[in-house]
Amino acid sequence: MGAKCIAVLTSGGDAPGMNAAVRAVVRTGLSFGMKVYGVMRGYNGLLHGDLKEMNMRSVSDIMQHGGTALFTARSPEFNTPEGVKKAAAMCREKGIDGVVVIGGDGSFRGARDLTGEGILTIGVPGTIDNDIACTDYTVGYDTALNTAMEMIDRIRDTTESHDRCSVVEVMGRRCGDIALNTGVAVGALTTLVPEIPYDFQKDVIDRIRLAQSTGKRHYIIVVAEGVGHTQELAERIQKETGIETRATILGHVQRGGAPTLRDRVVASRMGYHAVELLQNGIGNRVVAMKGEEIVDFDITEALEMPRVFDEKMYKVSAVLSI
Amino acid sequence: MGAKCIAVLTSGGDAPGMNAAVRAVVRTGLSFGMKVYGVMRGYNGLLHGDLKEMNMRSVSDIMQHGGTALFTARSPEFNTPEGVKKAAAMCREKGIDGVVVIGGDGSFRGARDLTGEGILTIGVPGTIDNDIACTDYTVGYDTALNTAMEMIDRIRDTTESHDRCSVVEVMGRRCGDIALNTGVAVGALTTLVPEIPYDFQKDVIDRIRLAQSTGKRHYIIVVAEGVGHTQELAERIQKETGIETRATILGHVQRGGAPTLRDRVVASRMGYHAVELLQNGIGNRVVAMKGEEIVDFDITEALEMPRVFDEKMYKVSAVLSI
Amino acid sequence: MGAKCIAVLTSGGDAPGMNAAVRAVVRTGLSFGMKVYGVMRGYNGLLHGDLKEMNMRSVSDIMQHGGTALFTARSPEFNTPEGVKKAAAMCREKGIDGVVVIGGDGSFRGARDLTGEGILTIGVPGTIDNDIACTDYTVGYDTALNTAMEMIDRIRDTTESHDRCSVVEVMGRRCGDIALNTGVAVGALTTLVPEIPYDFQKDVIDRIRLAQSTGKRHYIIVVAEGVGHTQELAERIQKETGIETRATILGHVQRGGAPTLRDRVVASRMGYHAVELLQNGIGNRVVAMKGEEIVDFDITEALEMPRVFDEKMYKVSAVLSI
Amino acid sequence: MGAKCIAVLTSGGDAPGMNAAVRAVVRTGLSFGMKVYGVMRGYNGLLHGDLKEMNMRSVSDIMQHGGTALFTARSPEFNTPEGVKKAAAMCREKGIDGVVVIGGDGSFRGARDLTGEGILTIGVPGTIDNDIACTDYTVGYDTALNTAMEMIDRIRDTTESHDRCSVVEVMGRRCGDIALNTGVAVGALTTLVPEIPYDFQKDVIDRIRLAQSTGKRHYIIVVAEGVGHTQELAERIQKETGIETRATILGHVQRGGAPTLRDRVVASRMGYHAVELLQNGIGNRVVAMKGEEIVDFDITEALEMPRVFDEKMYKVSAVLSI
Repeated sequence: MGAKCIAVLTSGGDAPGMNAAVRAVVRTGLSFGMKVYGVMRGYNGLLHGDLKEMNMRSVSDIMQHGGTALFTARSPEFNTPEGVKKAAAMCREKGIDGVVVIGGDGSFRGARDLTGEGILTIGVPGTIDNDIACTDYTVGYDTALNTAMEMIDRIRDTTESHDRCSVVEVMGRRCGDIALNTGVAVGALTTLVPEIPYDFQKDVIDRIRLAQSTGKRHYIIVVAEGVGHTQELAERIQKETGIETRATILGHVQRGGAPTLRDRVVASRMGYHAVELLQNGIGNRVVAMKGEEIVDFDITEALEMPRVFDEKMYKVSAVLSI
Repeated sequence: MGAKCIAVLTSGGDAPGMNAAVRAVVRTGLSFGMKVYGVMRGYNGLLHGDLKEMNMRSVSDIMQHGGTALFTARSPEFNTPEGVKKAAAMCREKGIDGVVVIGGDGSFRGARDLTGEGILTIGVPGTIDNDIACTDYTVGYDTALNTAMEMIDRIRDTTESHDRCSVVEVMGRRCGDIALNTGVAVGALTTLVPEIPYDFQKDVIDRIRLAQSTGKRHYIIVVAEGVGHTQELAERIQKETGIETRATILGHVQRGGAPTLRDRVVASRMGYHAVELLQNGIGNRVVAMKGEEIVDFDITEALEMPRVFDEKMYKVSAVLSI
Repeated sequence: MGAKCIAVLTSGGDAPGMNAAVRAVVRTGLSFGMKVYGVMRGYNGLLHGDLKEMNMRSVSDIMQHGGTALFTARSPEFNTPEGVKKAAAMCREKGIDGVVVIGGDGSFRGARDLTGEGILTIGVPGTIDNDIACTDYTVGYDTALNTAMEMIDRIRDTTESHDRCSVVEVMGRRCGDIALNTGVAVGALTTLVPEIPYDFQKDVIDRIRLAQSTGKRHYIIVVAEGVGHTQELAERIQKETGIETRATILGHVQRGGAPTLRDRVVASRMGYHAVELLQNGIGNRVVAMKGEEIVDFDITEALEMPRVFDEKMYKVSAVLSI
Repeated sequence: MGAKCIAVLTSGGDAPGMNAAVRAVVRTGLSFGMKVYGVMRGYNGLLHGDLKEMNMRSVSDIMQHGGTALFTARSPEFNTPEGVKKAAAMCREKGIDGVVVIGGDGSFRGARDLTGEGILTIGVPGTIDNDIACTDYTVGYDTALNTAMEMIDRIRDTTESHDRCSVVEVMGRRCGDIALNTGVAVGALTTLVPEIPYDFQKDVIDRIRLAQSTGKRHYIIVVAEGVGHTQELAERIQKETGIETRATILGHVQRGGAPTLRDRVVASRMGYHAVELLQNGIGNRVVAMKGEEIVDFDITEALEMPRVFDEKMYKVSAVLSI
């Protein structure tokens, strides 16, 4: 039997486009005749009843803003069996029989547990890192990519004017997708990702020498957060080549900003799909994107899928960016 | 036998990301040991030998700029059997045995004809309209979408401050994809596309009334160029509802600007793929994107494929944007 | 004696930065120990008591958004002696003894009339057109300039790729400042402003010919709204020169968007200054900017000042943009 | 007697808008009938004859790009009496009797020395820091301000979503202007500048407590590079308040990017003025901006002027940003 009263929350790190997903859940739920609650500060709001009933106007003018209008927070209490039971009890008290959780893998484990306590719960992938194995795309990823690219475009102006080398660290602890795509888009001479070990001499110094031989005098090197040692790498390059080399860590700037069209549209489609599942009485699913299609997977299965790194693109990157 | 000497040109309307495709063709060709020519102003340059040999530095620092560094132009002369023969003869004179054409359907017909004259030719879809049936994505589309969205975000600020209605015309003569996606991304109350006839009372006025009943006081309506009558529509709305209504035609602004990451990355991958085909002695193919994969199709077959409009997204749009 | 309870409203056309001015008035008033009201929809809100008491958090997170969080509207009723009396009576009823009006010349006439009825009123110049004689700068102007420039930068990409001419109409009915500055910033071959009559042959055609003789193949011409005939001008140029020429009217996009730093900072300083005047028991003043200084003028005198067009910049523009 | 043949170079750190200044010098010089050289990589190019003659098209399409198309570099050799003599000799060899140097204080000392060797030299202030005492404005400052502001706007999205505190370091070693203005524009709770010592308890902790008492839950603190200790400050705040606090150093991103309108327009006017001076046979002057006027000063006097910090704005900032 389909859900009659649903709640939506954002959990884990915020990502641009989360607001579009929230808006889609709220408006789709209302248009399906459901009662809809917005839950504040992730699972915490569910634990402590910090939620408010939403109407069509509750989500007006939030889609174009970064961050999450529902706020987000970690919830150590929810990450215990007692916490999950308490949250489920709160749902029953409020009459909530379906929940949409927008977040990453950690948030999906909570969604699975909540479904286990009888509350149909759906996960929507929202994280800038694109580090969720079951989906080609996570909400926030495209905005983060474009923010990183635009910032490196700016760094390039000054790098080029001074005939320098710039080493730029972008987000991505376990997943090199931001680094790889940004590297292609800014023409990085070398891109270092956590998935592929690198050889300083071969992947950095030799490529600088090769590029120099074609007349190039400035160099951008993109490094994923998970590779690290960015400042140290810059110093080694300067020492080895004599080229003035600067390190920049882009940091939290990449998490915010008005979402790109793609983040708004994908988030809208995913939020709609999540509510369709709940309407059909289905829980414990992650909404995902495969190519241009919106699909869904069993959460438990999704959490066990291995991520696949795009080796072809990595190779293309090396060919194009001399 | 694979191509040894290739040329690249941009043809038809320019699109952001064309430079990334040109850069990818040049650098991939050079890395494969080919000689590479850049052809100026589309097929015209091929007819009149207006081309220059490229090296690794010839395409430095073009990827981040809109437009096309090779320029583009219409070529009535090339659109004749004699023109095609003359272009093929020029290719033979210069030793060019492979050509990559970046453009739209019209440009692909030229590519097919040139292959017919013995010059292996590959098409890469470059047009902001996303109106090429065989591919999910055309180079320039994502930038145009984001430009249109950002401009309508700005229009919304003033529309909202004055409790007005704004009717905004975006590009797309035959294809409503820009309108549909932009409409979702800006929360347009109604989106009018060439693929689906509309009823003024039901699709425009009734939706305004419905939104008004929920407390909404400002309205954005997105219209594809192919639907037209934008100014007239604005006047009808104002007359019918009494709400002050303004029309804006976004126009050529949508064609330019620094390409988004997606346009740069997809263009890079497509350009690489095009040269791989030529290296393998394959011509008469269009490079295309299916989901996240780069594939290719026979040009003749590609030109006959019907475009499919995303009815589901159209429906989602109507649900979300009240 | 200084004001103890003040109100702030935005009036006339909205402009980016108005929110920063509202925020400055509210927070400065509160920090001075005043009671502060926000008035909705311009003078209408004053007539009908549509206002709310503000606290420090009432203006959080509005500064970075375009438009006005207080909304704006025309008020024919206020533009009568009875309307002004009614508004003044409402002020007395609410205990309001000082008002800050953010808007243009029309709004300042209202401010003068309200002061005449015993309510100390201060005008803050907020209009994108920079058409207020007493001040070097109006809130919203810098954002509008940059928006127009960025849009024309985009148009240039496609204009250049096709060897075309583009005629672009920017805002400014009586005042050519947006056109003049945008023209310099985009390298417009010719800029047409309402303050200076133009000769089609000499100022347009001859300059195109001159630029052609230096090798230039694309041309941007900027036209202020008050000059008009943009579409017609494009057609005449194409007919006369044979160069494909397109017209674009930028329109309401120029009114919105996140305010630039300059608009936020100047608006903040002006809002602060306005409350300082009220605290000192001074009304009937317009806040203004002279160079980098914030000053103020008697409203009546300010309304009679003649605007001065920057002839030197106009000349510089012609020298630089061949 | 006026200069007949001039050269232009960019020196020191690059700044957005330098290209507009170069373009203005080149085109003004040509329009005055002068011969004009572009000098590569600062004073180095003058020492080694690395320069090229410019025509009207040499500076096409550079104005909208960050960095400097003439490149820049430090020149230890020029910073010696022999270096200056050698550069002057090269000028005489090429027939150059006037030079325009776009850069900061260090570059102006070179300009003074070159004038001393008989080559009329004019300085144009180009540096993002706004740290040149004689002028209200330096080319590049407005772009850097807006870049910093936009990045902090993004950081705010995630700071607010998580109820965090963010400490953000912006450029400015000796001069707090970027920090002060950016702080006002982003609503920083506290702004720390090199000109004014701060008290951790009073200026940071007490202000956080005060803001908390009004209901505020996220905090931005802006720190100028010259104050430093950004990471350490973040840790102290977190320790003292228990609020999760993150540090971000914006770094070299602030140096690049397409120049804002203000940087393009001021650079154009300054470049024009520099050539007017040379045409009148005047050297050893710095072009400067006072309010909205372009003026000039004796270089030696300019270098001795004390910078004045805007104490009033500092006070306004503290009032507005609770």
